[in-house]
Amino acid sequence: MIVDDQLGATRDSVDDLVPYLRAFDEIEHDPNQLLIVAAVEDEPVGTLQLTIIPGMARKGARRGQIEAVRVRGDHRGSGLGGRLIRWAVAESRQRGCALVQLTSDVSRVNAHRFYERLGFVASHTGFKLAL
Amino acid sequence: MIVDDQLGATRDSVDDLVPYLRAFDEIEHDPNQLLIVAAVEDEPVGTLQLTIIPGMARKGARRGQIEAVRVRGDHRGSGLGGRLIRWAVAESRQRGCALVQLTSDVSRVNAHRFYERLGFVASHTGFKLAL
Repeated sequence: MIVDDQLGATRDSVDDLVPYLRAFDEIEHDPNQLLIVAAVEDEPVGTLQLTIIPGMARKGARRGQIEAVRVRGDHRGSGLGGRLIRWAVAESRQRGCALVQLTSDVSRVNAHRFYERLGFVASHTGFKLAL
Repeated sequence: MIVDDQLGATRDSVDDLVPYLRAFDEIEHDPNQLLIVAAVEDEPVGTLQLTIIPGMARKGARRGQIEAVRVRGDHRGSGLGGRLIRWAVAESRQRGCALVQLTSDVSRVNAHRFYERLGFVASHTGFKLAL
């Protein structure tokens, strides 16, 4: 699903799984990282990563940050993406977060409408610096 | 500095420090959270929080996320903000991150120019959902 993505196609590859396994191990051992996988008959069809970030501002508010939202091509339009996001929002609330945040590439216009339908507000500009 | 901020003024208060102390403790005990404070003669004049987020995409790349950039009013324009950001970029690189990211409220137009001068690209839309 990572490779089979509008943007990931140029950035990911299954030729060498070692870096992915190392990353999975790191996520698994960090209690503030939650990587969920939606499966149909044991086949993964969607993923989402939620990071809980403690912070000082907004009266010491935690925030839930959503990354890596992926839905397999043949499951798009099924409502699965919405279920993944709603799970992340509920989990963030349960963990005492005051807000949930994510960024989406400006080219992903369908994704933007999707997040707005779920109640998110496009209030920020997302800056990235490649290292 | 949190209260004395364009947006924080309505969201923070020093009347009750307990939630801030709890948040500080949480940040201090998480090895992926780095809260730095710039001081002049033991007086805090700037802060920045860097969160290291492991991830699967981009070949298992870690990302450095910058939050809570604050420079005390009487130190703005001194270059301190740039030094804080460059520290976060260098630290992210040292910790194996493939990118550094942050979001900035669309109303903070001066901040946007500042991040672009430091090499950041406004490639994303930042969505927030208040809980």
